[in-house]
Amino acid sequence: MQTQDSRLQQVVAIIQQANQIAANTELDTLLDQMLDLLIKVTEGESGTIYLYDENHHELIFMVVKGDVTSQRLIGKRFNAERGIAGLTVREAQPVFVHDVANDPRWDAEVGEMDNLNLRTLYSLPLILRGKVMGLVQIFNLDPERCDDPEELVVLDLICARLVTELDKTRLLAESERRRRRQEALVEIVSQLTTTLDQEELLNRIMDYACDLLNVEATSIWLRDQAKGDLALHLATGKGREHMVAQRVPEGHGFIGHVVATGETLIANDVASDPRFYRKIDDASGFTTRALLCVPLRAPRIELGGTRGSIEGRIIGGAQALNPRDGRTFDAEDIKIFESLTSQAATVIRLAQLYRDVDTLSNRIIDAITGAIDLKDPYTRGHSQRVSEFSVAIAEELGITGEELYRIRIASKLHDVGKIRVPDRILKKRAALTEAEFRQMRRHPVYGLEFLEENGLLELDLLHGTGPALAQHHERLDGRGYPYGLKGGEIPIIARIVAVADVFDAITSNRPYRPARSCDEAIAILQRVAGSELDATCVDAFIRARARGAILTQEEREGSR
Amino acid sequence: MQTQDSRLQQVVAIIQQANQIAANTELDTLLDQMLDLLIKVTEGESGTIYLYDENHHELIFMVVKGDVTSQRLIGKRFNAERGIAGLTVREAQPVFVHDVANDPRWDAEVGEMDNLNLRTLYSLPLILRGKVMGLVQIFNLDPERCDDPEELVVLDLICARLVTELDKTRLLAESERRRRRQEALVEIVSQLTTTLDQEELLNRIMDYACDLLNVEATSIWLRDQAKGDLALHLATGKGREHMVAQRVPEGHGFIGHVVATGETLIANDVASDPRFYRKIDDASGFTTRALLCVPLRAPRIELGGTRGSIEGRIIGGAQALNPRDGRTFDAEDIKIFESLTSQAATVIRLAQLYRDVDTLSNRIIDAITGAIDLKDPYTRGHSQRVSEFSVAIAEELGITGEELYRIRIASKLHDVGKIRVPDRILKKRAALTEAEFRQMRRHPVYGLEFLEENGLLELDLLHGTGPALAQHHERLDGRGYPYGLKGGEIPIIARIVAVADVFDAITSNRPYRPARSCDEAIAILQRVAGSELDATCVDAFIRARARGAILTQEEREGSR
Repeated sequence: MQTQDSRLQQVVAIIQQANQIAANTELDTLLDQMLDLLIKVTEGESGTIYLYDENHHELIFMVVKGDVTSQRLIGKRFNAERGIAGLTVREAQPVFVHDVANDPRWDAEVGEMDNLNLRTLYSLPLILRGKVMGLVQIFNLDPERCDDPEELVVLDLICARLVTELDKTRLLAESERRRRRQEALVEIVSQLTTTLDQEELLNRIMDYACDLLNVEATSIWLRDQAKGDLALHLATGKGREHMVAQRVPEGHGFIGHVVATGETLIANDVASDPRFYRKIDDASGFTTRALLCVPLRAPRIELGGTRGSIEGRIIGGAQALNPRDGRTFDAEDIKIFESLTSQAATVIRLAQLYRDVDTLSNRIIDAITGAIDLKDPYTRGHSQRVSEFSVAIAEELGITGEELYRIRIASKLHDVGKIRVPDRILKKRAALTEAEFRQMRRHPVYGLEFLEENGLLELDLLHGTGPALAQHHERLDGRGYPYGLKGGEIPIIARIVAVADVFDAITSNRPYRPARSCDEAIAILQRVAGSELDATCVDAFIRARARGAILTQEEREGSR
Repeated sequence: MQTQDSRLQQVVAIIQQANQIAANTELDTLLDQMLDLLIKVTEGESGTIYLYDENHHELIFMVVKGDVTSQRLIGKRFNAERGIAGLTVREAQPVFVHDVANDPRWDAEVGEMDNLNLRTLYSLPLILRGKVMGLVQIFNLDPERCDDPEELVVLDLICARLVTELDKTRLLAESERRRRRQEALVEIVSQLTTTLDQEELLNRIMDYACDLLNVEATSIWLRDQAKGDLALHLATGKGREHMVAQRVPEGHGFIGHVVATGETLIANDVASDPRFYRKIDDASGFTTRALLCVPLRAPRIELGGTRGSIEGRIIGGAQALNPRDGRTFDAEDIKIFESLTSQAATVIRLAQLYRDVDTLSNRIIDAITGAIDLKDPYTRGHSQRVSEFSVAIAEELGITGEELYRIRIASKLHDVGKIRVPDRILKKRAALTEAEFRQMRRHPVYGLEFLEENGLLELDLLHGTGPALAQHHERLDGRGYPYGLKGGEIPIIARIVAVADVFDAITSNRPYRPARSCDEAIAILQRVAGSELDATCVDAFIRARARGAILTQEEREGSR
């Protein structure tokens, strides 16, 4: 037996080693070095540490020493009813076993070693504030040691020294994990606002949800505003291909409940829940175990201006199914899924708002230009076609984005000035008088005035589009109207619309002549390219025709 | 002297006490109990613990025992060059002082006690991985104790036991703080999308930024797209009232640099920085010490449909000035401010997109209805006025939100069907023939067709507005046109527009009679209320007139 003096020094030395180990702020390293020290102090051959998950009554196999084959178990979870490990946790007391291999409680599958020479085992719970945090197992230590109370005091000291560190390190790891999750969520929630394309948006949030929540599948259900039932919009995960066109009646199933009440719902044991709407699993072959279901709730949105605010609305619901790794859904999952879906719902509403007013402006323009075309029965559909041709030419010229959008609108409006030309001139089938002709040739100017007087040219959306209306009858050689501009004085947008306009006029019936064929029209365009029309635009037009982007009035009507 | 045996027991007992203290995961409690134990072990009278902030070379006064007046210093920071505390940190060695009160290094102002009976002081650095984390000071302990090496070993053990806990607890507190900040950011970033009102939005982000970054002031500068310079849009903090209409030339100052390059910029010592644009501080009286300046960068936004995507753009910049509590800006501040401002920039772009197309549709509608009104010189401005009157009536009836917006648009379009009525009828000054009259009375049907044929009634924005066009000439007694509907068959929107339309007709000049006065017109409305027009709508109209929301054509022109 040692002297008390050297014994004290030894204890102090061990405590100092424990202090060094304690400096680790990384959980795996801390556990690894802790196990090394415990094996060294007990002179054992091998050992393991488990952490205990109280919520699931499970042991998590964290680290192993002296047994290579058990490495594969690291990270695995076991029911805490199993093995001597389970016993240690349940009794919250150290367990000493003299002959492990022949002990009926021994369970190699939960990581209690599986080599052949097992003799002794000391299984020690790690207890903090009266609660079991985990346990240490040391194998093949000297049996006498376990009968030495001082040996136990030192082991207890080491464990007591490190269990608090373990606790904080685990809390720190958990806090960091949650912080990173929140950071990812900030990134995602910001990203969602960069698209107003609803499909793209819904796809994105489902990807993000799978990732952040680590689940097997997700689905989005949108509420049919007219019928009130829910239509599956999008599903990820196994069996999704069988989920096309699925519908859930109003108020049915978890999703129906969530959409009807606006309340989030968790079911960690779906099979036994009466609210479960089995038909969907039956159709897809997917087995729903656990489910987190949240409403897609668009909040009240402040629009400002004359429109004020629009009310909040539940537009549908989203589901996350089957958390991986045997987890169950928890409060943090709810919060994250709610943040994600609420942002998605807001952006979907914004997209809808934008689309509604964009569609309104487009249809109003179609309606007015259509009505003007109708004043002359020979120009039905003219504005629409000139717009399509102009866009096709512009695309060939490499014009994209906002400029293309401007050309689309402005070319549609190119004849809007005709609203100020009297009907009797517009509708006259006989040749116009000189005075009538003069007035007819004022329509480009009227068009420009129409835009200017109504503040339309000040808009970013129509910036620089005046010439599409005012100058689409100008000619490169200066013989056009109303200004008689020449060459470089005529901007590209006017040159584009001019080609589109001339082509549609040639290929449409007129009171004084029938429609010409497309080939004839192109021949005419080519003849006047460089003198009347811009040659580059004519070339672009011919290329657009070649790729099928140009159809004459006759070709359209023939195909009806 | 004690025996080694009882000495060991004593050490073990102290270590066990330290273990219990170590279980605390809350920094203040941990420090508090740690100091208690150290004072008890050394039999001192009072004590303090400081933490050391290496970045700023500052000591933070954390906890004090045995001296009530020093409590006020808790949380205060001191330069680490001061006092015996500073010495302990700089030398990373324990310092023992036999007569504190007469020691020239003693500095009561940094918390080294200020009572009169100071005798001894033991000042012990807390060292982890070779770095000083802080220090403990124990006052009036037995001078002999400091000469006892075993006493020092025990103190060292306690400190070594707890310094790792201190470190982790501090890391945990820091991680939790950062997690909560990220959580708040998620909330904020989500909230930003609930308004498209630019002013409201900018106000919100500045409030959030002040909060999250804990700074004295913030400002937002928007880029003038035409001139290229930056205009102050919004400022918070001291002197903001002097910051009206401030401008910074393109590329000047920190903000100009950031907007020009798109790069975030930190200046923790502004005064000595040549990029500092002094004129703004000169004007406001605010003294900028430190500054974090980020671009307001709207990303590329995917719109879907025919419009595709719009390019990203730097729309301005945002500044956060002077972090409170002597902090300097760090990497986390940058990330948070960037997240916040990038989301704000995105939403500002979305708002702009929405506003642009909303304005386009409104002006297009104004343009077309205005052009139709102009066909009859006596109806100039009629559609606009009828819309205003209709909205005023609807407001009196308590109609709000989307329904009010629909009434605004639909009432403007109420006569749009006239686009299909020949000019010669519209413009005819003499009485119409029976056939012309019949055709004139078709305009409500033409209007409905205009909406229907162009798919406008399918839009949510115009849902249910058909009657504003088709039925605004119906009468409650069934004697209206075109359908001769009666009472309950006429929906509210048509009744509202009818009142507005009749009033404007009466108060405008007509070829066959001059305009009547408003009083006369109201008398007429009241006379036909219940038979021709809806009485509730007439009452609402009269109330709207009383609050100044109704002006006749004459009143408007008189006021020009």
